[in-house]
Amino acid sequence: MAGTFVIAQGGGPTAVINQTMAGATLEIRRRHPGARVLGARHGVRGVRDGDFVVLSDLPEEQIRLVAGTPGAALGSTRDKPDAAYCEKVLAGLRKAGADAFIYIGGNDTSGTQQILTEAAGGTMAFVHAPKTIDNDLMENDHTPGFMSAAEFVAGAFLTVDLDFRALPGVYVAIVMGRHAGFLTAASAAWRIDEDSGPHLIYVPERAFSVPRFIDDVRRTVDRHKRCIVAVSEGVSAEDGRSLVETIVPPERLERDAHGNLKLSGGDLGLAFEHALREGLPGTRARVDALGYMPRGYVGAISRVDQQEAFEAGIHAVEAAGRGGGSVAMQHDDGRTVLKIVPLSAVAAKTRHMPDSFLSEGPGLSPEGMAYLQRLVPRKYEIGVPFV
Amino acid sequence: MAGTFVIAQGGGPTAVINQTMAGATLEIRRRHPGARVLGARHGVRGVRDGDFVVLSDLPEEQIRLVAGTPGAALGSTRDKPDAAYCEKVLAGLRKAGADAFIYIGGNDTSGTQQILTEAAGGTMAFVHAPKTIDNDLMENDHTPGFMSAAEFVAGAFLTVDLDFRALPGVYVAIVMGRHAGFLTAASAAWRIDEDSGPHLIYVPERAFSVPRFIDDVRRTVDRHKRCIVAVSEGVSAEDGRSLVETIVPPERLERDAHGNLKLSGGDLGLAFEHALREGLPGTRARVDALGYMPRGYVGAISRVDQQEAFEAGIHAVEAAGRGGGSVAMQHDDGRTVLKIVPLSAVAAKTRHMPDSFLSEGPGLSPEGMAYLQRLVPRKYEIGVPFV
Repeated sequence: MAGTFVIAQGGGPTAVINQTMAGATLEIRRRHPGARVLGARHGVRGVRDGDFVVLSDLPEEQIRLVAGTPGAALGSTRDKPDAAYCEKVLAGLRKAGADAFIYIGGNDTSGTQQILTEAAGGTMAFVHAPKTIDNDLMENDHTPGFMSAAEFVAGAFLTVDLDFRALPGVYVAIVMGRHAGFLTAASAAWRIDEDSGPHLIYVPERAFSVPRFIDDVRRTVDRHKRCIVAVSEGVSAEDGRSLVETIVPPERLERDAHGNLKLSGGDLGLAFEHALREGLPGTRARVDALGYMPRGYVGAISRVDQQEAFEAGIHAVEAAGRGGGSVAMQHDDGRTVLKIVPLSAVAAKTRHMPDSFLSEGPGLSPEGMAYLQRLVPRKYEIGVPFV
Repeated sequence: MAGTFVIAQGGGPTAVINQTMAGATLEIRRRHPGARVLGARHGVRGVRDGDFVVLSDLPEEQIRLVAGTPGAALGSTRDKPDAAYCEKVLAGLRKAGADAFIYIGGNDTSGTQQILTEAAGGTMAFVHAPKTIDNDLMENDHTPGFMSAAEFVAGAFLTVDLDFRALPGVYVAIVMGRHAGFLTAASAAWRIDEDSGPHLIYVPERAFSVPRFIDDVRRTVDRHKRCIVAVSEGVSAEDGRSLVETIVPPERLERDAHGNLKLSGGDLGLAFEHALREGLPGTRARVDALGYMPRGYVGAISRVDQQEAFEAGIHAVEAAGRGGGSVAMQHDDGRTVLKIVPLSAVAAKTRHMPDSFLSEGPGLSPEGMAYLQRLVPRKYEIGVPFV
């Protein structure tokens, strides 16, 4: 098989994307002694510009140390190449003498690999290795990065719920997740008893209404003397517009290079503060955004996530040997099984939370809870407070 | 010594305030078998209202389990009693037959104990056991709760710095801390190399200016290709007004029951977003508030903090035997030494960061860094990224 492999990382960093890089690098060195492994800096941008670090020259200990480090050690990019950009990337790969290109990322990344596969006409193997805290890749039971992010979110809500048992009030935290609610749903994974928050969970899969939200909060405060709320940044109104569009003046809306609305800033949080101030005047209410923390908080890295992400890198090398494809993490008979699926099955598609994971009200069904508790078992022993 | 002890928790919960409750409870049971230990729910409010949980009836395992749980298991309060309220608290203590009252909290809490001491006229022992993530108690080298909170903050900034190495931009996180900058300074404790963020640290001890801030950010981006900023929620302008007062319209300002400005909401974050948008147009910039997470995040609890908080509870019982006082954690010859000091030395005073901990620019001096690294040594091995 090939003598030169290029590896790159795309999209948002995670707690374990470096494990996948390390898994692929060490597997290439094991299978193909003498092969060159080039790590492209900042994703396809580094491939295009010939900006590489020679991973095959580094000591194994260094690679293993970086593997355990959150972030994207090669640097990442938000570039989503079109056909013209892909031609330049392909030229960069040819110039580097690449036989295979392993790109670690989400559905945009697999889309790039699909375009490159078509452009290259069979001369090179293109592999997509999965990575996303959003957990929204088709063909996957769950994705590397999700378990660690979910662990952060579960721990954050456990913490805040304990805080608000002591000093009651209403608390809203906005969680990353534009289209899929998995990460927001993870807020419920570490509930300790019937009284535990989050009491309300709003995901993009269900239409959001401010008056219904205020009613839900009021009912929860009556029952639990406090109300802990988890909201996906991507929650949308009945008409399909994202919540932020319905409450933030158009001139203040920001969009990224892909035309996607910027959702995680202060505007959405402020809108929630205002809604609570008007709907429930006099109630102590705080709104936070968990922001970037779920994406690699160093104190919430799941060991299983680390191992699976490393194995996804190993499987990416196997996929390169078979001419390309997307590595998928499936669930079979109680275990995670890694498969190789066509890029087209994953590229530019979004997996949403199954309807069966959600309850009638703003929360999870038993099936949804079971899914989360399988992936994110509670890591700490917790005593029930006396209030 | 006394037959009935009352224990309560005041102010913001922390990761280890329950350790102090457990330390006191188990020490009373050890020294005074048969003594009653009453835990008041929601601080002085529960004392006043006779709302108690009988801690001496609980199995030791339950108390130890709760000890390891963040939050304030007895419930807490923001009530800051005046003389009339204190009379009612004293009546509640007498009704309960209390011989000693141990109140775990910050400087407001020690102030309450001072008023109660004077009102009781020597008939009862009043003890303040220290607790605050702000680390701002006089007579203390550091306070229980600070190390865990600092560990969360250090880990959060390490995480975000790694994230922004991969996808460059400007990042600002607002950290709790109204008057003292210790917790914001902890953002620097886990830097991994010369390139590491946070690159700028703004604390309440130094006047803040928006134009100077924009200059600082611009210079940092030139040098590091990114800029990670830690800001205390209490930063103030040259004229002494807190930053939020200078940038938020007066009708939007909220105050708590003590007349303290509400600082940690979205307004301050939004103000920073606007300042960056105007001062550095076109730059990718994100502003988060770390919010409540430092105050007990379950994945960032310092073992030393746990042990010391437990010992503070033990010392509180010793202080009760000596007629009252405030337990202080001092530093002597490389070790933490617990002392008993007069309530008046701590009550209603604030310890600020020593000037010698701060550098000329917006950052820490070597002495400040050494202090933090003594208390919050880095817990994780980190590999330096390739970008």
